[in-house]
Amino acid sequence: MTEQANTPLDFRTEPARYRHWKVEIDGRIARVAMDVREDAGLRSGYELKLNSYDLGVDVELADVVQRLRFEHPEVAAVILTSGKERVFCAGANIRMLGQSSHGWKVNFCKFTNETRNTIDEASAESKQFWLTVVNGPCAGGGYELAMATDWILMADDGNTSVSLPEVPLLAVLPGTGGLTRLVEKRKVRRDRADVFCTLEEGIKGKRAVDWGLVDEVVSRSKLDEAARSRANAFVARSDRPAGARGVALPTVARTHDGDRLGYEHVACVVDRKRGVADIVVRGPGAPAPADAAAIHAEGARFWPLALARELDDLILHLRTNEEEVGLWVLRTEGQADAVDAYDRLLADHAGDWLVREIRLYWRRLLKRLDVSSRSLFALVEPGSCFTGTLLELALAADRSYMLRGTFEGDARPPAAVRLSAMNFGPYPMPNGLTRLASRFIGEPGRIDDLKGRIGQDLDAAAADDAGLVTFTPDDIDWEDEVRLAVEARAAFSPDALTGMEASLRFVGPETTETKIFGRLSAWQNWIFQRPNAVGPKGALHVYGTGQRSEFDRRRV
Amino acid sequence: MTEQANTPLDFRTEPARYRHWKVEIDGRIARVAMDVREDAGLRSGYELKLNSYDLGVDVELADVVQRLRFEHPEVAAVILTSGKERVFCAGANIRMLGQSSHGWKVNFCKFTNETRNTIDEASAESKQFWLTVVNGPCAGGGYELAMATDWILMADDGNTSVSLPEVPLLAVLPGTGGLTRLVEKRKVRRDRADVFCTLEEGIKGKRAVDWGLVDEVVSRSKLDEAARSRANAFVARSDRPAGARGVALPTVARTHDGDRLGYEHVACVVDRKRGVADIVVRGPGAPAPADAAAIHAEGARFWPLALARELDDLILHLRTNEEEVGLWVLRTEGQADAVDAYDRLLADHAGDWLVREIRLYWRRLLKRLDVSSRSLFALVEPGSCFTGTLLELALAADRSYMLRGTFEGDARPPAAVRLSAMNFGPYPMPNGLTRLASRFIGEPGRIDDLKGRIGQDLDAAAADDAGLVTFTPDDIDWEDEVRLAVEARAAFSPDALTGMEASLRFVGPETTETKIFGRLSAWQNWIFQRPNAVGPKGALHVYGTGQRSEFDRRRV
Repeated sequence: MTEQANTPLDFRTEPARYRHWKVEIDGRIARVAMDVREDAGLRSGYELKLNSYDLGVDVELADVVQRLRFEHPEVAAVILTSGKERVFCAGANIRMLGQSSHGWKVNFCKFTNETRNTIDEASAESKQFWLTVVNGPCAGGGYELAMATDWILMADDGNTSVSLPEVPLLAVLPGTGGLTRLVEKRKVRRDRADVFCTLEEGIKGKRAVDWGLVDEVVSRSKLDEAARSRANAFVARSDRPAGARGVALPTVARTHDGDRLGYEHVACVVDRKRGVADIVVRGPGAPAPADAAAIHAEGARFWPLALARELDDLILHLRTNEEEVGLWVLRTEGQADAVDAYDRLLADHAGDWLVREIRLYWRRLLKRLDVSSRSLFALVEPGSCFTGTLLELALAADRSYMLRGTFEGDARPPAAVRLSAMNFGPYPMPNGLTRLASRFIGEPGRIDDLKGRIGQDLDAAAADDAGLVTFTPDDIDWEDEVRLAVEARAAFSPDALTGMEASLRFVGPETTETKIFGRLSAWQNWIFQRPNAVGPKGALHVYGTGQRSEFDRRRV
Repeated sequence: MTEQANTPLDFRTEPARYRHWKVEIDGRIARVAMDVREDAGLRSGYELKLNSYDLGVDVELADVVQRLRFEHPEVAAVILTSGKERVFCAGANIRMLGQSSHGWKVNFCKFTNETRNTIDEASAESKQFWLTVVNGPCAGGGYELAMATDWILMADDGNTSVSLPEVPLLAVLPGTGGLTRLVEKRKVRRDRADVFCTLEEGIKGKRAVDWGLVDEVVSRSKLDEAARSRANAFVARSDRPAGARGVALPTVARTHDGDRLGYEHVACVVDRKRGVADIVVRGPGAPAPADAAAIHAEGARFWPLALARELDDLILHLRTNEEEVGLWVLRTEGQADAVDAYDRLLADHAGDWLVREIRLYWRRLLKRLDVSSRSLFALVEPGSCFTGTLLELALAADRSYMLRGTFEGDARPPAAVRLSAMNFGPYPMPNGLTRLASRFIGEPGRIDDLKGRIGQDLDAAAADDAGLVTFTPDDIDWEDEVRLAVEARAAFSPDALTGMEASLRFVGPETTETKIFGRLSAWQNWIFQRPNAVGPKGALHVYGTGQRSEFDRRRV
């Protein structure tokens, strides 16, 4: 295991620093070519041959997706393809997986899954339609990436196929959504999926179309023309504004000083001894802009966008670089009225392309919180602003504590929480329900009642009565009750908490996303620990050595 | 690990041999009391104190549930309670878990989950309503058992509480459906569920009702009266026939000779070297009875019931006692017309209580196949009878091979498959969809087309065209193609296959059942391998020793 844990991974990047992706924009169509530099892996010990990828490649891809959406409102179709001559993508790098710790593998899969979900969402919600041009062998994670797009066009030649060879070759699952998207998104018949997932060499040509594995095959000489034609069809379906000007996303500024991370709107203090990250989210420092034009003028400085980018960076940092910090305590500071004013902007200008992107970004960000394998507590205290969008943080938490009354000697008024229109639709969880609908799945009538209370300040008694908070201790009990809860949480098995939280958070309906994070990931995590995959004779370890793996044949 | 693998576990039992349960029937109400004999564990090395249980206790419980449904049509309400003075049930025995292999733990959880689902189903479908009287501390698996029933009545005293202490105490999940039923069936608010699942001491009295953990609390002196009253209310809602006579279930007869298991209607040959079980299901040997009265007269000899009991026993035997046999090959032998005649009886007399039970039993049996961690291949050859109910076996398989034409020198006509009404509703998978609806989730229009073909013999070309089989090799290719597929399957990692099959089999909607088997079990299996639970300092290992467990604090 070459963890190099002392070098924290930085998720911030920008086009000038890309090593693995080439983005070309031609009017309303972007071309995103994967062209992985073999020698530019994130860590030493492996070479990224055949367009195989590690987390570093995916961090750049996530940035590509994000920038296309914010910086290029005019782009309505994105052609994903390979920049290499003879291969599309060989999937996740096996030697990288082989030398990674269990935790690294799991975190890698989570991030890559989130990125693929973002591609799904770009087509479905941003009307920036992604299509894949498979111009060479497309295996494992390469095909999983293709399945995240809305159309797969494949070269019909003797060399090009799609495959999911993980089970026969590596004794693991196609864990980046592959099994799920195969049957849920592409609706491939289950027996054919069974055959396909056990065929090392994959499937090409007409059978790939017949089985629904790809949408279209054409001869190699017609590939570009077919891609252009399909992209134009997507452009015609898109509502993205051809003449709009994008919003540049400058690097998120932060200070990182040992245990403290500071952003303009977010502060985080890590207490490694207690295993706790204290996260404070600050409300807007400036009045909300007057209209959509003013929002565009503010661009990346617009508080909801700036805050989302900072929180996103913090979550990724904590997930990857602070594995032993198992509890994130979420607090807010600021004025409810100020947050409310921004929420009204987000609600009133939902049709504006930029506001739509910001709303979708918050949706993704809050989902990222939902699927983080960390316990989340929210503390609602005087001076806080758990209003609308920020109230979602408390609703995403596993539990919340709200002070009843005031702290002795604190002149500020008692804490209040406030609902806005943003709590009733724009931010569904991975299960497709809002956090309120998930919370009250046993009492759906509450949702209409709560809609009637939008804009009201609810004190602890009212919030408790409305079911919005878990506990409402007063000043006398607050410190002990919170401290004991934090200490108790820190004493539990991190693994048991991960499984418990993943089981309790997503009630009700399931979606491709919940199946990926709940079912597929759980099975993959299990397999990622099994000697048949990771033991000395396991398939991941002996891959490429010429040795055969040896399996314990007992079925579990 | 004291596996005692040389003593195969026998799932067949009967009331005269119960050691842990007392069943009393008083008119329309049964009382099922858990009274576990401490010294009668299935294996040595642990004592079943405080009504804790091992697989042996659960095998008896499954028999109780089954016999109440078939042998006691008059029973409309079942009161589940404890036969001990001071405890309801302490859950699964921890020392048993601590000394069990990974595979045993997983198989134990699967069987106990299936039994609890059967209790859920008894209330929902058989109108034999189960209620629980919690007459003492009810922890972990004890509370999970209670949640499988439709009403939980708890004594309101200082001693009695419900709890799920697995996470704080044992570093594992409440893995017998607990987390899932808490939020999905009982719809406990997620933050309260989070609190409850981390409270070692549990919750009692009024708060347990307020939070939805139990339905009713009454003082101990009024417990019997309240139980009787609630049971009577259930009786009033039930359509079970008060005056009907039950069908006795004699012990399933079988011969077991090394690699061969023989039943009247099922034969199985185990090839341990290849890791394959060849299972042949035989169609009816006698003409179908004329009417419902004749079905009742045949009782347990009625072919669909007799076959279901034999297949069920075989599946349980193979799952538990033949861990290294990873592929089950399913074949049938017999006359399509004969099977069809029985299917028409099952369809036409759905309102008869016994026929209803038989249909529900097949539904459970086929679900047991769906959730078995074994690869399933179906072979459709001349002389087979994959018709209606038996066609479900092929539809449950991961893939199927159907011979096109005949074998050289075989005078029998080519194989055909045939649909019956039983393929279109009575046997939903755990996801709530029929196997056909799951299979054609991408082409729902096919279902209506197929309904129009009920009763037709479909040869290989027609079955292929209808999408009912995977491959249709002819005589020349058959042997090689099947042999290579079997060999390839046997060469793959058993773990990867388990995860793959669990991901591909259950497309579309999810239910409490799929969440239990897909999500909860996968997380639990993962945790069951983690050093924090099962390592030398893991919580399962040090439990009861006075030592504290030591956790790797990294969150994964």
